[in-house]
Amino acid sequence: MSNKLVYNFGDGTADGDASMKNTLGGKGANLAEMSKLGLPVPPGFTIITDVCNAYYENKKNFPKELESQVTQALKLIEQKIGANFGDEKNPLLFSVRSGARASMPGMMDTVLNLGLNDKTVAGLAQKTGNKRFAYDSYRRFIQMYSDVVLGVDHYNFEVILDEKKEELGVTLDTDIGADDLEDLTKLFKEKVKEETGKNFPQDVNEQLWGAISAVFNSWMNDRAITYRQLNDIPAAWGTAVNVQSMVFGNMGNDCATGVAFTRNPSTGDKSFYGEYLINAQGEDVVAGIRTPQSITKKAKAEAGSDLPAMEESMPEVYQQLVEIYKKLELHYRDMQDIEFTVQNNKLWMLQTRSGKRTASAALKIAVDMVSEKLITKEEALKRIDPESLDQLLHPTLDPKAKIQVIARGLPASPGAASGAVVFDSADAEKRSQKEPVILVRSETSPEDIKGMHVSQGILTARGGMTSHAAVVARGMGTCCVSGATSLHIDNGGKFFTVGNVRVNEGDIITLNGSTGEVILGKVPTLKPNLSEDFKTIMGWADKVRRLKVRTNAETPADCMAAVEFGAEGIGLCRTEHMFFNEDRIISVREMILAEDKEGRKKALDKLLPIQEKDFAEIFKIMSGLPVTIRLLDPPLHEFLPHKKEEIEQVAKVIGIDSSFVKRRISALKEENPMLGHRGCRLGISYPEIYEMQAKAIFGAALKVAKETGKDVSLEIMIPLVVTKKELEILNAVIRKAQSELGYNKKYMIGTMIELPRAALMAGDIAKEAEFFSFGTNDLTQTTFGLSRDDSSNFLPHYQEAGIFEKDPFACLDQDGVGQLVEIATERGRKTRPDLKLGICGEHGGDPSSITFCHKIGLDYVSCSPYRVPIARLAAARAALA
Amino acid sequence: MSNKLVYNFGDGTADGDASMKNTLGGKGANLAEMSKLGLPVPPGFTIITDVCNAYYENKKNFPKELESQVTQALKLIEQKIGANFGDEKNPLLFSVRSGARASMPGMMDTVLNLGLNDKTVAGLAQKTGNKRFAYDSYRRFIQMYSDVVLGVDHYNFEVILDEKKEELGVTLDTDIGADDLEDLTKLFKEKVKEETGKNFPQDVNEQLWGAISAVFNSWMNDRAITYRQLNDIPAAWGTAVNVQSMVFGNMGNDCATGVAFTRNPSTGDKSFYGEYLINAQGEDVVAGIRTPQSITKKAKAEAGSDLPAMEESMPEVYQQLVEIYKKLELHYRDMQDIEFTVQNNKLWMLQTRSGKRTASAALKIAVDMVSEKLITKEEALKRIDPESLDQLLHPTLDPKAKIQVIARGLPASPGAASGAVVFDSADAEKRSQKEPVILVRSETSPEDIKGMHVSQGILTARGGMTSHAAVVARGMGTCCVSGATSLHIDNGGKFFTVGNVRVNEGDIITLNGSTGEVILGKVPTLKPNLSEDFKTIMGWADKVRRLKVRTNAETPADCMAAVEFGAEGIGLCRTEHMFFNEDRIISVREMILAEDKEGRKKALDKLLPIQEKDFAEIFKIMSGLPVTIRLLDPPLHEFLPHKKEEIEQVAKVIGIDSSFVKRRISALKEENPMLGHRGCRLGISYPEIYEMQAKAIFGAALKVAKETGKDVSLEIMIPLVVTKKELEILNAVIRKAQSELGYNKKYMIGTMIELPRAALMAGDIAKEAEFFSFGTNDLTQTTFGLSRDDSSNFLPHYQEAGIFEKDPFACLDQDGVGQLVEIATERGRKTRPDLKLGICGEHGGDPSSITFCHKIGLDYVSCSPYRVPIARLAAARAALA
Repeated sequence: MSNKLVYNFGDGTADGDASMKNTLGGKGANLAEMSKLGLPVPPGFTIITDVCNAYYENKKNFPKELESQVTQALKLIEQKIGANFGDEKNPLLFSVRSGARASMPGMMDTVLNLGLNDKTVAGLAQKTGNKRFAYDSYRRFIQMYSDVVLGVDHYNFEVILDEKKEELGVTLDTDIGADDLEDLTKLFKEKVKEETGKNFPQDVNEQLWGAISAVFNSWMNDRAITYRQLNDIPAAWGTAVNVQSMVFGNMGNDCATGVAFTRNPSTGDKSFYGEYLINAQGEDVVAGIRTPQSITKKAKAEAGSDLPAMEESMPEVYQQLVEIYKKLELHYRDMQDIEFTVQNNKLWMLQTRSGKRTASAALKIAVDMVSEKLITKEEALKRIDPESLDQLLHPTLDPKAKIQVIARGLPASPGAASGAVVFDSADAEKRSQKEPVILVRSETSPEDIKGMHVSQGILTARGGMTSHAAVVARGMGTCCVSGATSLHIDNGGKFFTVGNVRVNEGDIITLNGSTGEVILGKVPTLKPNLSEDFKTIMGWADKVRRLKVRTNAETPADCMAAVEFGAEGIGLCRTEHMFFNEDRIISVREMILAEDKEGRKKALDKLLPIQEKDFAEIFKIMSGLPVTIRLLDPPLHEFLPHKKEEIEQVAKVIGIDSSFVKRRISALKEENPMLGHRGCRLGISYPEIYEMQAKAIFGAALKVAKETGKDVSLEIMIPLVVTKKELEILNAVIRKAQSELGYNKKYMIGTMIELPRAALMAGDIAKEAEFFSFGTNDLTQTTFGLSRDDSSNFLPHYQEAGIFEKDPFACLDQDGVGQLVEIATERGRKTRPDLKLGICGEHGGDPSSITFCHKIGLDYVSCSPYRVPIARLAAARAALA
Repeated sequence: MSNKLVYNFGDGTADGDASMKNTLGGKGANLAEMSKLGLPVPPGFTIITDVCNAYYENKKNFPKELESQVTQALKLIEQKIGANFGDEKNPLLFSVRSGARASMPGMMDTVLNLGLNDKTVAGLAQKTGNKRFAYDSYRRFIQMYSDVVLGVDHYNFEVILDEKKEELGVTLDTDIGADDLEDLTKLFKEKVKEETGKNFPQDVNEQLWGAISAVFNSWMNDRAITYRQLNDIPAAWGTAVNVQSMVFGNMGNDCATGVAFTRNPSTGDKSFYGEYLINAQGEDVVAGIRTPQSITKKAKAEAGSDLPAMEESMPEVYQQLVEIYKKLELHYRDMQDIEFTVQNNKLWMLQTRSGKRTASAALKIAVDMVSEKLITKEEALKRIDPESLDQLLHPTLDPKAKIQVIARGLPASPGAASGAVVFDSADAEKRSQKEPVILVRSETSPEDIKGMHVSQGILTARGGMTSHAAVVARGMGTCCVSGATSLHIDNGGKFFTVGNVRVNEGDIITLNGSTGEVILGKVPTLKPNLSEDFKTIMGWADKVRRLKVRTNAETPADCMAAVEFGAEGIGLCRTEHMFFNEDRIISVREMILAEDKEGRKKALDKLLPIQEKDFAEIFKIMSGLPVTIRLLDPPLHEFLPHKKEEIEQVAKVIGIDSSFVKRRISALKEENPMLGHRGCRLGISYPEIYEMQAKAIFGAALKVAKETGKDVSLEIMIPLVVTKKELEILNAVIRKAQSELGYNKKYMIGTMIELPRAALMAGDIAKEAEFFSFGTNDLTQTTFGLSRDDSSNFLPHYQEAGIFEKDPFACLDQDGVGQLVEIATERGRKTRPDLKLGICGEHGGDPSSITFCHKIGLDYVSCSPYRVPIARLAAARAALA
């Protein structure tokens, strides 16, 4: 750890700068940078992130050098401001805030107005000539400090406040007078004594160290841990603590507080965009308690609001703010999210950071900034999180659908979603395992983070575009409508009413996050219409990437969607998916139930023309792009019926006794079907199945080539191989079918590498395989000895306990499974230098796994159609890395 | 292929010698060697094994050089013998036999008396003055040649023979006179014409090439393929063909034929041992049609026979034979199995080879030969197939049991077995899947090989100690009683009678292969009493081997048996096996059904003293030897009841509703339990389970150390680990229990390496593990993606198709799984040079897998108690290799 634990900022100078995020946290680094830029930043200091780690490593004790460095920093601020910490006449007050390397909005604790006690409050009243303000600040401070530092729940104080209001016969906090507020501070302190057995601390230094400890402690609270897991933030980063002199937006009507974005975070439009509140503290804006006003006249008009814009109410300060935001954006070369406070008509900057934005905004901003020559194309690609594109690729509401709009709120996070209504985070977690849910809350708070994560959409009755719900939902790419004020929510009764409509828990509603509409029932959706910005970015990505991107698809609809999304072929066509259609399942069952080869062949003969037609359709859509067809893979019993009626129906159609069907079903049952009689093992046992499939493939390829005049680029893939010999035997079956059909075009036969033995024996297997496709789903299951179907019981706990950093089924385990992929790549290529290599597990659509695939030199990744653009961008970023 | 395809032998010279087994086959090499030794060997030649491969590679055509070399060889024999092939006056006759590198008794085809036709038969009659002999030889030749070469089943000729005997009113073949035999040859030839549409070949060269082809063809018959699979003989070895001039043991009473062993193949006693028949062809002895006579007077007395021994009937030839057998044993320095024929009082040696022997005979012969200074101790160890010890280690009949002996036969293969009676190979294969079976046959033939393999014991009504049944059973280590002549078998009715006892198919009988007793019903068995020879060999093995041998055991009985067999510790104590006892399963179920940690702890508190007692018992028996205890491994649902009554019982005892039990059982059900919530995953989810087990272990170790004054050598093993972190967490649970119990002795914590990821991450895992034990059962399942429980459907087919050379669950897959074991060994030792390494899968008792474990440097193998001696010997042989 460095010797310098405390960094000063403010008054046009700073010890640090924006490059020191790792040390100062995001907030601290940017406060330093703004100070250096000469912007009006209230003086303060940052305790570095290393102190957080030292604090935890040393049983929550601070390094001994810290105290003197803090004392020195305090003195410097006192000099700059001309006020003193704890001074009874001219008291200096502080805010104490967290500030990690990555933004974790609302996850950690904050204390404001620190430095007030029974004496300094009087000094503040006298100095400001505003006793009401002073005692209002003091009662807020007692409540916040007691909650955060002393562990006295804020609920205790709210009850006292409510009683006081009742006693006074008023409904708004602002209607409470100065004396009553003073009285409240006494009642609050009594409550603290009652709950903690100790007096509320009057020593301002005790207050300060209590608050610093509390902020460090909040690094390890449940919310923060969950947020870090969801966002892949290592616990070892730690948080910094920012102690900053207070400025007040709530000292009267020449005061205000606000947040703003240098461009529209929802659309990406190049227009200054924000909200403010007159006579308020900063927390009032983001907490969503009062609905805030627009900053610009333009935004006011668009929102149809009649509350004055800041541009109108504080035109000079507004001009100053405009100059500052432009300076900041130019300086940082990125859209900024800024916080400010106006105290007695003086503007203070409290924060700037890269603003969170929707995916479409990210695309627009990136493309615009390239044409503004602010950034390069490569920088533009690096600015866009591939995963975020997901929200652009999801369906929107069908405009032709008849919809019953029951309420309107703010379009807080775009997209559309239908789901069952739930009213709290726990219900959301539970119900979401069975069906999509919409979380409905008066307003969300950081405690709701888990529930928000599992919900398809979020609806709040209060709060603006920058409320907690809106910010978090946009970050997650989850559709959100905020501030739908006509909603009356009864959390106890688990229903809400809007007008005379009552919506109970479990009822289905639909949200349109792009318009703010709340709709009763489920609404049909449409594929997203991709913007020009999207296409521009994808074009840049395609020029940069080396990895090809294919898709896993077998239905014509999926194939078409994938091609539209830019897929360069099919990496995995699962033929068995075609077996389930109503017109063929009976023949499939007949084949399985047959007692001998003759019986099987009879049934397969019926399937042949159907499969051929399926393949022909796909070949036509793919129009010469490579198509990898995997031969039958799952255990046969998956196709058999389980319900009594179905069993009887099959027996009847086939003309056998239903008791035979039952016996056969039970004979085919396996203890561990994942490891059973499936994949190429079926082809070895019943070569006639693969023979039929091969004939269907070659037949279709011949027809399509003749019809379209364009050859099919055919790759036949044999699953679940563990020895070269299996491939030898089955290649012979395929070659025989090929020669019988007189197919004389080039095609490839390859195999899935999806079992550890296949990876280890890849050098041998490559003698018979012209390509490998890594089936990382099964490879993960077998390498870990972990059934995907059965792991949900304990996998979450494994992640919480830090045993698995990430879900290995979502994100390729590079340490373990990755070794096998590398081994197979190396040995396969050694045998056959032109071996084509790809990946077709779920991981083919996961950006970090794609980076790995790029690094080890695979030729392509294959993923579900809707992840194709994500994969294209991820592949480009991998190439740039 | 070499240019020399044909090797001559006989008359004191030979082109080859005993070292050329790979080229000449065992029979050919030894015929050459005997010739060189100056023994009387009928002249002949050997067509080398490479020709067999060339024949199959070239669509069953011979290399073109072969014909001229055969012709030359024939001429050489004609010169030596002074007779000519096909000569009408002085015909030379040949036998044509197979001869592979490894002995495959009776699996391939043979043709005798080749060279006879309508003209040469007359010459033979005249030359020998024995028309009856000549036509008897001819009718035998026609039958054999037609069966083997022309595909006319021998049944056809037997029917004609039976009709002729009926017509003549005689019962024995020997009662048929010369003219009637001549007539039979005509009837036989007519039958051939009828069946094949062609005349029986009169051209002796056509006969010869037909026979040579037939022998090569028989290399690929079903019996031979099965035998090769059972005995791990590669098809690529091929067979040689031996063409040898005929000598006749059936030309009169100064003729005989016999087989003998230079030492007793059943007991190993150093006494010449064999059987012969006057006036017979060799096949008569082994086919078991006539019960043969003893060679020595001593054996005759022991058998209680009144037929004259060869020592009495042919004293001079006998003396000559004694000299030869001594010379052969001294020359080969091993017990020999010899075949001879006496033609007109002249002795001819037809074969010598290392004799098959029982395991106890192998031990005795090896130990004796060491004391006779014929071989070294190391050679002695190399001579004994570890697998063969298995037959010594199996139980024998309890001498105190009351038994009802219903018949007596020859003690053809030692050991004892009870089982349900079956009467043919197919029934044996079927029924053996449900229960142990005893195969009962009049006499066995090579077609019965599959049925013999699946039977616990073999009982024949005819045939001697060297009959097919006896030889094959000894080789398999299967108990066999042969020649129980009082049995009357009704194959059609599927029963046998003996006196007035009738035994139906499915009735249980017991065989005592060491006494020849056939016993009605099931007889209790006793552990084997190991011979001094056994102990001597084991002592030598223990001095040579580097690998330690431990056992997999958890019951006191198994632990004691293992210690007696020489186990040097417990390598795997499966704690869950202790959970199934009646006195604890209820508590186990209570624990699983508990809704929370408190409920689980309550149930675990009841289990703690029981487990402690179990462990204490084991620690006492093992008396300071290392004991590796694996913590709970299987998925919890394995312990839950499935029958309605059981469910109700549990519900009642625990005091919960049975519907809850049912729900819980269904909730715990997994799709792929092998890959589910088991092993250390249970310990992570419910640390209280492992805590209880750790406390029971330390508690027991403390008690036993106090009681016996001897420390327990304790190794605690955590199963199914895939990350270091799992071990970290669970080690802490164990260390906590240790410190709570105040256990301050040395002990180790280690892990199973049983999943591919664990092997790949071994370097990391070894940071937390003091030992690794390779769980190769699960490692094989996951590396292959192959469920042991489900593979029986297709594994046999995989072996037949040559995809798997051996069952990977029986014999470690060194190519694939072995790589992971090697990787883990290397990486684990790199992290922790003193890492202790062992194997505890089934492979720990398999000789070839043990060789692998030795080679890669493991410290020990662990196997089931009864395989401990096998492992000790295998480990010694691995060290010698």
